[in-house]
Amino acid sequence: MLTRSAIDAVVLPALAEDAPWGDVTSETILPAGSGATAVLAAREPGVMSGMAVFTATMLACDPEAQVEELLGDGERFEVGMPLARVTGDARGILRAERVALNLVQRMSGIATETARYVDAVADTSARIADTRKTTPGLRVLERHAVRCGGGSNHRFSLSDAVLAKDNHLAVLTAGGRDLTEALRDARAKLGHTVHFEVEVDRIDQIEPVLAAGVDAILLDNFTIEQLREGVRLVAGRAVVDASGGVSLETVADIAGTGVDVISVGAITHSVRALDLGLDIELD
Amino acid sequence: MLTRSAIDAVVLPALAEDAPWGDVTSETILPAGSGATAVLAAREPGVMSGMAVFTATMLACDPEAQVEELLGDGERFEVGMPLARVTGDARGILRAERVALNLVQRMSGIATETARYVDAVADTSARIADTRKTTPGLRVLERHAVRCGGGSNHRFSLSDAVLAKDNHLAVLTAGGRDLTEALRDARAKLGHTVHFEVEVDRIDQIEPVLAAGVDAILLDNFTIEQLREGVRLVAGRAVVDASGGVSLETVADIAGTGVDVISVGAITHSVRALDLGLDIELD
Amino acid sequence: MLTRSAIDAVVLPALAEDAPWGDVTSETILPAGSGATAVLAAREPGVMSGMAVFTATMLACDPEAQVEELLGDGERFEVGMPLARVTGDARGILRAERVALNLVQRMSGIATETARYVDAVADTSARIADTRKTTPGLRVLERHAVRCGGGSNHRFSLSDAVLAKDNHLAVLTAGGRDLTEALRDARAKLGHTVHFEVEVDRIDQIEPVLAAGVDAILLDNFTIEQLREGVRLVAGRAVVDASGGVSLETVADIAGTGVDVISVGAITHSVRALDLGLDIELD
Amino acid sequence: MLTRSAIDAVVLPALAEDAPWGDVTSETILPAGSGATAVLAAREPGVMSGMAVFTATMLACDPEAQVEELLGDGERFEVGMPLARVTGDARGILRAERVALNLVQRMSGIATETARYVDAVADTSARIADTRKTTPGLRVLERHAVRCGGGSNHRFSLSDAVLAKDNHLAVLTAGGRDLTEALRDARAKLGHTVHFEVEVDRIDQIEPVLAAGVDAILLDNFTIEQLREGVRLVAGRAVVDASGGVSLETVADIAGTGVDVISVGAITHSVRALDLGLDIELD
Amino acid sequence: MLTRSAIDAVVLPALAEDAPWGDVTSETILPAGSGATAVLAAREPGVMSGMAVFTATMLACDPEAQVEELLGDGERFEVGMPLARVTGDARGILRAERVALNLVQRMSGIATETARYVDAVADTSARIADTRKTTPGLRVLERHAVRCGGGSNHRFSLSDAVLAKDNHLAVLTAGGRDLTEALRDARAKLGHTVHFEVEVDRIDQIEPVLAAGVDAILLDNFTIEQLREGVRLVAGRAVVDASGGVSLETVADIAGTGVDVISVGAITHSVRALDLGLDIELD
Amino acid sequence: MLTRSAIDAVVLPALAEDAPWGDVTSETILPAGSGATAVLAAREPGVMSGMAVFTATMLACDPEAQVEELLGDGERFEVGMPLARVTGDARGILRAERVALNLVQRMSGIATETARYVDAVADTSARIADTRKTTPGLRVLERHAVRCGGGSNHRFSLSDAVLAKDNHLAVLTAGGRDLTEALRDARAKLGHTVHFEVEVDRIDQIEPVLAAGVDAILLDNFTIEQLREGVRLVAGRAVVDASGGVSLETVADIAGTGVDVISVGAITHSVRALDLGLDIELD
Repeated sequence: MLTRSAIDAVVLPALAEDAPWGDVTSETILPAGSGATAVLAAREPGVMSGMAVFTATMLACDPEAQVEELLGDGERFEVGMPLARVTGDARGILRAERVALNLVQRMSGIATETARYVDAVADTSARIADTRKTTPGLRVLERHAVRCGGGSNHRFSLSDAVLAKDNHLAVLTAGGRDLTEALRDARAKLGHTVHFEVEVDRIDQIEPVLAAGVDAILLDNFTIEQLREGVRLVAGRAVVDASGGVSLETVADIAGTGVDVISVGAITHSVRALDLGLDIELD
Repeated sequence: MLTRSAIDAVVLPALAEDAPWGDVTSETILPAGSGATAVLAAREPGVMSGMAVFTATMLACDPEAQVEELLGDGERFEVGMPLARVTGDARGILRAERVALNLVQRMSGIATETARYVDAVADTSARIADTRKTTPGLRVLERHAVRCGGGSNHRFSLSDAVLAKDNHLAVLTAGGRDLTEALRDARAKLGHTVHFEVEVDRIDQIEPVLAAGVDAILLDNFTIEQLREGVRLVAGRAVVDASGGVSLETVADIAGTGVDVISVGAITHSVRALDLGLDIELD
Repeated sequence: MLTRSAIDAVVLPALAEDAPWGDVTSETILPAGSGATAVLAAREPGVMSGMAVFTATMLACDPEAQVEELLGDGERFEVGMPLARVTGDARGILRAERVALNLVQRMSGIATETARYVDAVADTSARIADTRKTTPGLRVLERHAVRCGGGSNHRFSLSDAVLAKDNHLAVLTAGGRDLTEALRDARAKLGHTVHFEVEVDRIDQIEPVLAAGVDAILLDNFTIEQLREGVRLVAGRAVVDASGGVSLETVADIAGTGVDVISVGAITHSVRALDLGLDIELD
Repeated sequence: MLTRSAIDAVVLPALAEDAPWGDVTSETILPAGSGATAVLAAREPGVMSGMAVFTATMLACDPEAQVEELLGDGERFEVGMPLARVTGDARGILRAERVALNLVQRMSGIATETARYVDAVADTSARIADTRKTTPGLRVLERHAVRCGGGSNHRFSLSDAVLAKDNHLAVLTAGGRDLTEALRDARAKLGHTVHFEVEVDRIDQIEPVLAAGVDAILLDNFTIEQLREGVRLVAGRAVVDASGGVSLETVADIAGTGVDVISVGAITHSVRALDLGLDIELD
Repeated sequence: MLTRSAIDAVVLPALAEDAPWGDVTSETILPAGSGATAVLAAREPGVMSGMAVFTATMLACDPEAQVEELLGDGERFEVGMPLARVTGDARGILRAERVALNLVQRMSGIATETARYVDAVADTSARIADTRKTTPGLRVLERHAVRCGGGSNHRFSLSDAVLAKDNHLAVLTAGGRDLTEALRDARAKLGHTVHFEVEVDRIDQIEPVLAAGVDAILLDNFTIEQLREGVRLVAGRAVVDASGGVSLETVADIAGTGVDVISVGAITHSVRALDLGLDIELD
Repeated sequence: MLTRSAIDAVVLPALAEDAPWGDVTSETILPAGSGATAVLAAREPGVMSGMAVFTATMLACDPEAQVEELLGDGERFEVGMPLARVTGDARGILRAERVALNLVQRMSGIATETARYVDAVADTSARIADTRKTTPGLRVLERHAVRCGGGSNHRFSLSDAVLAKDNHLAVLTAGGRDLTEALRDARAKLGHTVHFEVEVDRIDQIEPVLAAGVDAILLDNFTIEQLREGVRLVAGRAVVDASGGVSLETVADIAGTGVDVISVGAITHSVRALDLGLDIELD
């Protein structure tokens, strides 16, 4: 699902950043042309994401390298499992190593954390969705990682869907304008393919929002009790999205209220790099 | 210390990523030309980093905006403190909001975590240094954030300093070559401005490495006891750098062994976004 | 609604394309520093689009130029009306002239043609929508031009909405799979913000498609009679979109069938540049 | 004649524009790895242009695709003729489809319209030339399309040749300066490889312009009678170029006056996309 | 004559190359915000070229800097003369210094050397022209420098003019084809604005080349005697261009033969940087 | 040691600069698909540098070309020796020719001149080092060329090492501050991998600079006598670097004083292109 151009758009500048005028260590110490084999190994269990990124980084540094992918994105692995094996030019592999690991560790870290949330709500119909709280420059990759972990993607950007928040509603109803009517007018300006979602902070906002015919309603910072009440009020007329105060401790309870989607910023904005290593054996 | 061009190289593509063809919500709901004031506020205590990034992001979306920076990079703040105030076009501020927060939360998260490590070793002479385990595309910004937290920067890239690791040493001494002599020869190939650091895994590697006249020696995954012994052996002949198994729990003990530098990957590879918010008041 | 960065992404390369190493005519003939005033004038009636593009092109060639915009995007004008006036460096204005006209004539041509379609369906509730048949590199600008003409935007790209066509349906139901179930399964893989539209070629496909719960159904190459039947069958359960065989001659009849959206490729893929000129008066 | 780099400079950004974060339809519906064969087919007769662009777009989306080009650029085709055949990854072909068609339809549209003008003047010695009224970003491709249709290219840009127009002449002769002398002085400042052409609006400007030794003279908006008189006056001392009021109705008469070149903006600024389709057969 | 965009296209990447992650010296030693005044001074006599490049480099590093240009491009200066004065941020000026000097020293070196050639032929009607032997990436700037020195520009690139050399002629006449006819046919394929120049190595090639109606003929590696004979044979029917063996010692004699243009590779491919310095006075 | 991406970053834009819209000569004269063989030949003796650049330029213009490299970078060659042989598409080779030669002639010119300096000091322990006086955009290539000639690289940029000059020292000691202490404080702010070098103009500055513990001291514009005295004073406590007044005439004497490094601007800022030619034999 990740295209080569999306990967290259991240990997090539990252390699330039990490070696703007070569790798002085390898060039000094490794004879030109010496070979190596490296194994990408799991030092903790997790969910794979970024295998194509790993491969592309290696090939960018050594176009002749042979990369064997031992696992697919979205698959789970245990400690010690080999995930990929690359054979090629030693200098190339060592130049690629850090960039490849930085990306794959982050992506697999996101997939693994997402999977924890997804597992926690497995016996409900709620989906775990990401947010726009991604790392600048890496959104396509991080969104893919969320999908690898079983999560669902929220709108990609400000361009592809409406999410009207408190500030927007304040403007819309300035001067005492009726919320329902104002939302209906706003929607009429949009193309018919644009998803229309509105965030509310209070139970009493739900009815007027729904009356305008929205696609989804985001209940922000609602208590479990309020969420349950909200779901009851919406009664299937729109997708119910919940956000705020979501953690591994709270997510099962939130899902239990019957919401359709739970948006979690932490799966992308606060990622712990998964512990993967590259074991290199020089010829 | 962050130049405008370094900031723009991150901010402008990030804004394009977050709004490739405009902000359909604001364009639908906010009247063109309506104004707003926003306050960047601390929702938890921390160390500031990225104030110029915040300002640049706002100005990129509204060149006429007035941004008041209430705190400088490297300064500490408490919960609830206003950090910056911006007045300008409402659509511009809302378009900038997410990108600005994504970057400043990450940078301040790094600075704050770095400061915790720095505080933990405050009564020693050890420095806390970063690594190349940074987010691809953001190294200049993340390195700056480490400095804001009182940390020190390790080599920036593969190009500007040598760090010879186990794999390199294995090649260098292949065929039974003497390590000291091999390192001396390697160094002779380098320009005189290139820092030369060698990583060792065992106590008995220290003497032959030092004999070659290195600038620094990296003791990797040494126990506290071994570090102490290593420092004693080096005896000031090179900078002593320690890595592996460094955490907020262990760092003080490591620093207590007398090492000069402690390299910590976690301050950049596993960052929790600091909780900062943008409180917007529309006109 | 067009951001400065979207405009610059087109205008700056266009200027480089049109003058890769300067303007040999002006540099030879016009004394450095000589001034000029130019008026953008309508040589035929139409609907304005691209005023900000005109201004940005002039300013790119002469940052000190004074541009007076006499009309806003979306406004109609008559033959002979002055649309904008620019005063500045003569060399700058002449260098900008062709690029500015090439863009504004195209955009206003699109807006004007779109408005003809919109006018033709004015007494119905149908919207005129564009397609992905835009000029490579100019989609953001051409979509804006469609809106200036009163049209509505269809999905922007392959990324932001699903439009499943005959080929997709063929794959989906390969091996005798039930269409409704297959579509329902496909939709379940998508984020909740993604618009889901399915194209059908025959009346009997409508019911199984609707049963899957789509957002919109595209009736492709239906006769007027079939469209009317289609609208009756859909009965408000999804947005009805019509495409194929749409021209200024047929559009009113198509709209009369009660469809919600009419997608027209011709308003972007076969544009006649509107006749606008730049009347220059050198100092 | 189109280099791969010129093609890629258009195709790669166009693909990114059309699928910034993937093709959600194909990724949802088509199994990874499923194959397809597609035929580029003519739905109306025309002149081919852009075959290499078609191929490059397909290969950019599927580097393993096999593309068979059944016709060369500049060749004519009839309704229903297959022009190219591509076999490869179904997702890749569908992702490439719209961009490939948008470009090839436009280029073949230009070639076909150009050929109509060329045919109309076939029994004269006049050439049909293009202008700088091309689509921003596509000049190299559109100029190639003009050549495919049998047309000739005018100057590519402001940089490579002089074309002094009324405004330039006004400046040159300001203060009562002699036109001939002024032009001669201007030309002396130019490198000897720069083509020097001057536009005139009146018969009486011809002699003083020619006296300065220009390479070509552009008779702008002359009547047929005036053109004939102009050609007679020039008498072979310079290339005679005609512009203004050129259409398929008038071009033969203009050519009949004996002019050498007829510059036509419409062949690039007001193109109707030629009706080509991609017939896809999925495996 | 140098546009800001042409200058920025060189200066901005050059600054990034020279300080990819800041200026560690200035950042360590100079207090943020300290000011400085710097004078660009001539340490040898020469001809100015690149003043706008100097200014742009300074402003790129300090947008608030005040730059006073004391001399214009093309003007001559003596040892010790101040050429420009800049007042601004000390860190910015020091960061800009090396890039500014590298460019201005090279450009003024070219202008100064060109002027020596121009002076050497001052009492003839011959022009000194440059070639395509320029520094990759700097052609626009180096061509400007040649003009500053009083030289003339040859074709800019392979795209804007024909220069058929021995290899081309060999192909053209392969199979015993008549040279005149072959050249005439080749020219007929070109647009009327394209300069057509043919290189010959022997006297007896001149007549057949001229018979084809070329714009210029390049006499390559002719002796003085042969040049004189060549000029006599051409007799004004085409521009006569001479190349090969041109040096400051030989150029006057070559010019004395009556050729129109003398093409000199050395003025761009073997430049000595002119000795200019930046005298900095910190506040 | 030159990576493909570093080469492409120079070669691809250079080719675009040299043929923005094709090669009108070859396209007019050479039949599409005609082949050629070309030999890169030495017209004067020298040291090879840029063989990979030559190959990359040829392959960029003809991906199918066969390039045989007959010599490696750093090897010496005599007049008339063939250095490389390329067989491929005639148009491709001719399009690549000028860019390939411009780069290889410059690089080999630098390598050859550097080797002259290196030879001149061969019986001393001094190294010849380059400076930041390189051509903007070509630093990575020119630094490589210096190494090919046996030279050593000084700091690459402002980012990777400190070189404090007179202006910096002036600021540092402003207000009567002690130089040693000030330098020690400055160094303490730097990461431990950053080389710290200080330039001095006078003998009496040496002791206080060394007392601060610098890595290297640069003796600028010292006489031979002063250099000898300086070396004696430093006594191995830091690397001794000499600059100013270095030429092929003086370098041996400078090296004879016992300095470790001699920095020479002229090997990069004033390069004479080495006389290499491409002898083309068309099929």
